[in-house]
Amino acid sequence: MGNDGGCVARGHRICIVTHAGDMKCHGNGKQHGSADGHDDDPRMASAFQKHQFTILLTLFQIVFMILFGLFGKYDTATMPEGSEDSLPMAVKYPLFQDTHVMIFIGFGFLMTFLKRYGFSAISINMLLACFTIEWGMIVRGMLGHEFAHEGKFTIGLEQLLTSDFAAAVVLISMGAMLGKLSPVQYLIMALIETPVAIFIEHTVVHTFHVNDVGGSIVVHAFGAYFGLACSKAFGDKSQREHENEGSIYHSDIYAMIGAIFLWVFWPSFNAGVAEPADARQRAVCNTFLSLVACTITTFIVSQATDHHKKFDMVHIANSTLAGGVAIGTTANVVLNPLHAMCVGVVAGALSVIGYKYITPVLNNKVGAHDTCGVHNLHGMPGVLAGLVSVVFVLIYEPASYGKSLTVIYPAWNSASSQAVNQLIGVGLVLVSSLISGMVTGFILKLKLFNQVREKELYADGDYFETPADYDFNTRIVSRIDRVEINEHTQLTQKEI
Amino acid sequence: MGNDGGCVARGHRICIVTHAGDMKCHGNGKQHGSADGHDDDPRMASAFQKHQFTILLTLFQIVFMILFGLFGKYDTATMPEGSEDSLPMAVKYPLFQDTHVMIFIGFGFLMTFLKRYGFSAISINMLLACFTIEWGMIVRGMLGHEFAHEGKFTIGLEQLLTSDFAAAVVLISMGAMLGKLSPVQYLIMALIETPVAIFIEHTVVHTFHVNDVGGSIVVHAFGAYFGLACSKAFGDKSQREHENEGSIYHSDIYAMIGAIFLWVFWPSFNAGVAEPADARQRAVCNTFLSLVACTITTFIVSQATDHHKKFDMVHIANSTLAGGVAIGTTANVVLNPLHAMCVGVVAGALSVIGYKYITPVLNNKVGAHDTCGVHNLHGMPGVLAGLVSVVFVLIYEPASYGKSLTVIYPAWNSASSQAVNQLIGVGLVLVSSLISGMVTGFILKLKLFNQVREKELYADGDYFETPADYDFNTRIVSRIDRVEINEHTQLTQKEI
Amino acid sequence: MGNDGGCVARGHRICIVTHAGDMKCHGNGKQHGSADGHDDDPRMASAFQKHQFTILLTLFQIVFMILFGLFGKYDTATMPEGSEDSLPMAVKYPLFQDTHVMIFIGFGFLMTFLKRYGFSAISINMLLACFTIEWGMIVRGMLGHEFAHEGKFTIGLEQLLTSDFAAAVVLISMGAMLGKLSPVQYLIMALIETPVAIFIEHTVVHTFHVNDVGGSIVVHAFGAYFGLACSKAFGDKSQREHENEGSIYHSDIYAMIGAIFLWVFWPSFNAGVAEPADARQRAVCNTFLSLVACTITTFIVSQATDHHKKFDMVHIANSTLAGGVAIGTTANVVLNPLHAMCVGVVAGALSVIGYKYITPVLNNKVGAHDTCGVHNLHGMPGVLAGLVSVVFVLIYEPASYGKSLTVIYPAWNSASSQAVNQLIGVGLVLVSSLISGMVTGFILKLKLFNQVREKELYADGDYFETPADYDFNTRIVSRIDRVEINEHTQLTQKEI
Repeated sequence: MGNDGGCVARGHRICIVTHAGDMKCHGNGKQHGSADGHDDDPRMASAFQKHQFTILLTLFQIVFMILFGLFGKYDTATMPEGSEDSLPMAVKYPLFQDTHVMIFIGFGFLMTFLKRYGFSAISINMLLACFTIEWGMIVRGMLGHEFAHEGKFTIGLEQLLTSDFAAAVVLISMGAMLGKLSPVQYLIMALIETPVAIFIEHTVVHTFHVNDVGGSIVVHAFGAYFGLACSKAFGDKSQREHENEGSIYHSDIYAMIGAIFLWVFWPSFNAGVAEPADARQRAVCNTFLSLVACTITTFIVSQATDHHKKFDMVHIANSTLAGGVAIGTTANVVLNPLHAMCVGVVAGALSVIGYKYITPVLNNKVGAHDTCGVHNLHGMPGVLAGLVSVVFVLIYEPASYGKSLTVIYPAWNSASSQAVNQLIGVGLVLVSSLISGMVTGFILKLKLFNQVREKELYADGDYFETPADYDFNTRIVSRIDRVEINEHTQLTQKEI
Repeated sequence: MGNDGGCVARGHRICIVTHAGDMKCHGNGKQHGSADGHDDDPRMASAFQKHQFTILLTLFQIVFMILFGLFGKYDTATMPEGSEDSLPMAVKYPLFQDTHVMIFIGFGFLMTFLKRYGFSAISINMLLACFTIEWGMIVRGMLGHEFAHEGKFTIGLEQLLTSDFAAAVVLISMGAMLGKLSPVQYLIMALIETPVAIFIEHTVVHTFHVNDVGGSIVVHAFGAYFGLACSKAFGDKSQREHENEGSIYHSDIYAMIGAIFLWVFWPSFNAGVAEPADARQRAVCNTFLSLVACTITTFIVSQATDHHKKFDMVHIANSTLAGGVAIGTTANVVLNPLHAMCVGVVAGALSVIGYKYITPVLNNKVGAHDTCGVHNLHGMPGVLAGLVSVVFVLIYEPASYGKSLTVIYPAWNSASSQAVNQLIGVGLVLVSSLISGMVTGFILKLKLFNQVREKELYADGDYFETPADYDFNTRIVSRIDRVEINEHTQLTQKEI
Repeated sequence: MGNDGGCVARGHRICIVTHAGDMKCHGNGKQHGSADGHDDDPRMASAFQKHQFTILLTLFQIVFMILFGLFGKYDTATMPEGSEDSLPMAVKYPLFQDTHVMIFIGFGFLMTFLKRYGFSAISINMLLACFTIEWGMIVRGMLGHEFAHEGKFTIGLEQLLTSDFAAAVVLISMGAMLGKLSPVQYLIMALIETPVAIFIEHTVVHTFHVNDVGGSIVVHAFGAYFGLACSKAFGDKSQREHENEGSIYHSDIYAMIGAIFLWVFWPSFNAGVAEPADARQRAVCNTFLSLVACTITTFIVSQATDHHKKFDMVHIANSTLAGGVAIGTTANVVLNPLHAMCVGVVAGALSVIGYKYITPVLNNKVGAHDTCGVHNLHGMPGVLAGLVSVVFVLIYEPASYGKSLTVIYPAWNSASSQAVNQLIGVGLVLVSSLISGMVTGFILKLKLFNQVREKELYADGDYFETPADYDFNTRIVSRIDRVEINEHTQLTQKEI
């Protein structure tokens, strides 16, 4: 005589219930921390733990500002007072702004794909990028010639651009750790990684004279392998099969906002520091063609390797970008459109295969969980970029570059010596990123730093004020399968 | 004594039920193809059908790369080796990047308005754009002087920009066919349309010396009428009143991301190839003013023609852009701000009226279903642009252009001869697009190519791995009207 | 024996019910106006009320076009016919386009944070911006020298940029009034505010020779205090604690699209009219550093002042931008990176504290409801910018600017006289914005203009065709707390 009779015969039934206690939080649009929130639990949180984000970030910011105050000065060399030469900025500013969009919109939205981690992804991306921009500007400034001679470092348009590159390194590593760190831990990671990455970049570029115009070796490969090693050292099993780790329909579309802005502006990233003008145009064209070929390859391999012959949005959002990474080191070098396209094709295929077959192995066998799959978007394509650079050093005639040769390869001696240097660069980055990442992972595990509760992995709830519906789609939608409407006024009236 | 008594008296009741079978797919965040998926059904799918996307796209990509390898070379004329002339790229690169954003973000997100077709819209947009960029570069290259003389075609910044224009043609046609084609069919459409469109453009511009700086005739009108004719030849009744064809609240907002980026960057599209500098500035200003006036007109007409005096997001997202199309042909020509605004006003009104009164007729009487309403955004405004160009040829003094005249109208003879040429251009585009679109529609109907199942029209399900909530808002939300909370602990306790 | 026994013991139960009457609106994907819609009620709406948007906007547009026709002409001075000097546009066009993105994407999406007001936010933003661009171009043109001498005003790239600035003023005021005005009322507000704001700007810049390169005084402070005064005069209690005023998870993420584009392109806004080249580079660098430091400060203060030590997305989306406002007036002036960072730190802290402690007071005590918190993003930081400009006038050596000095401070006499002028500028803007805003608020209250029904405050329903799910997340989701699945086939079968 159940009044749900028409439905329950199917063997399951869903009741929609509320706890009296939970209802309290509705109505004002915000869910405030529940009793089990770690911050509210006096047993778990010392004063330092409760305030450590505030304390540490304030401290870092003060130190950074003191360093800026002591050593920073604006560029008056390339643009002296009253200068009316508008061309330098007309050339560089659009490249910088495109890169700036990539860092904040591109990386930020690409990481919103997790269903319950949208606020964190976009916000922590912004925080880490700003933190690294300041820290990176200081570190890079202190490594420069000018600082050695004058005790000052210059800040100008060029430095804004390279500070965005520094941010990219940290954001790539963040991709591997996404959802597993507390805000404090993200900061500690950035604090350690930035000087290591910039020092290694400095060594690779200035000691070994490696050409890496788009930073595929020193930015992408470094960031990815640092992140993976960090994840290996830091991770435990609970992070590897968590119900929060997945997307919803809308979050996959948000991610595409980030993905496409990265895709569209990648030529500016790779051409940002390319000199002179002909090399800059080549960098744009090579990146463009590599991305186009990579995208087509991504669609082919994504479908071909799927059991149901469906495309996977993870591949569309990530592997399509691998062509930009893989051509990055040699964007100013490649002289033949077909060569750029070949690089893109290999990168796209490698990346999809990575998502499909290598990431699960890294996750389950190696224990290096990689939330965003940065190994497939930045790691392997970055190493590929390095290897490709060896090939192109060897196959192109140096004379083809005319006067640009010494700009592209400042210490050109012979093709084989340059090729060896390019290889050394790749090796140095791999070794240093893995070691420093591993060490960082162990440091992040220290109980000193706030850790994410297992239940709140890949979730905003502990760190952001969230509206009442924040986990509706993930907590409830997937359990409601169908709504049936039955007319049964009569039956009901009888029952009453 | 039913414990739902408080609710059911209203005459309907909703039970929320799950099928045991369906529940299997929950939990891992992905819904895998169900038993009725065509790809899984051995009776329906030959090996070729199952793999045809992989096979065909691989084949096309290989052929394209061979052609790039044989005939493509980088531009070393405008920027020779070691060139330090940064100005050409400083002028053109931002215009190119804005256009690039329009193609991938603009068109891509504008088409995400369908409630269940977001993954496809944004992904297939990307795939088709890349496919057409490659194919268009080859076709355009082979039609050029250089290829005729040297057997090579050049790739440089200019060619990246024009390849984006080629992509626009195909993406406009995609708008008319949105949701009705399988990935393979979209590719076939792009494969056929691209060479026809570029050949017609070449004829219009180089044989008849038509001025169409923003491509309103050869890009917008061609793409729209090709798509409509294709839809007419391809369509059947099931596509015309399908429950999946509609938006949800969020998808209408996604679409605005695309719409506004198109709106904001349209001046760059129309000025992209405008020469010299004064004509470039005019192209920007005319497009800006036409869009502004068009937008205001759209709001007026959208509300005025609505029975409930409400605005319609379809108009806001689409008709506001018609001013960019309508001024496109003459963006470099118009010498008076008011004239640009008048063009925008007419375009906005025409476009809203098109959505309101003409699209239903095309759909129901003519049988040319137009998912995005490209007829109202690109078709009619494109033809309007052509007619407007005739008017402006006749009313302006040629002397007003100074030295620019021969750049704008390279074969200027007299106003009347140029006016006739402009008209011939419009006519040629209309005839060729309708015929080639119609033929393409018949080809797409061939059983040889995978067709979309009727149930999965305008839906991602058959072609993309979708999260569990993907159709929640469309399948379930619309059936839940209200949630009531009743306190009846006592009643319940008695029952227990 | 209730078959919901497992659930109801918790004391609440939710039934999901539908009214037969309500179901009518489902199925076609659109909810049409219900019987209580004001437009449908003949008792409430005179013909003028029903059509007033159409009538007034048509009238305004016709008048604007007549004025453009009589007085507008294109710029042929900086770019004469046939000009081949591409540099001016290469320098300015990217700055203009970035600003253009800020106005339409930035402001537009930032205001989509309300859960039921997304269509209105993005659409009305577009409408008001276009309306103000036209109206502002006319007003500014008529105040110029050229108009006084020749009876014409020029339109060129420079004027497109300044018309975007004019739009910003109105959009900031719109932020204070968001959700409380009907489309007609928004137009009336823009109609009144634009000439006042431009006249005051003209006085501040041309009479008092105030340096306000990024418009923080004349754009941000003016817009904010105008909006607050308008809100005070217009508002009533029903607007201050409305259930529609709040966000959902997705709308907070949309808002971040707008926030980050504003953040990324703010250097272009502040550098847009900076001359010469060295001042332009400084404007970019100062804005960049101020924003970075402001963002870090926002995270610190947002968490430190929160009871649960959580970040608030309202701060992340808004207060991070305060650094761009606060450095705006002096972006071309500041000569030391640390100084720019200090301005950013103060701005970020001030803005978060404003949201936390000042906005509630303004709302509850002063009665000036501020939907977007423009007081914290534009108002206080704008005043701060003005005060900061006094400080920097006094502390920097005028000689440091070289030849740029007379461009930055065209009527430079002495540091103290310039400082006084800067202060007068701030005072003039505050007084004029408060008075004109107050008057406008009273005008908007006139019953002559359509008013928003109390129930439909902060909601799209009365003004936009909305899909069936439009208020699902806000109306229903927050009341469903948990879905339980119980296997009870046996029980059910017994009951049947």
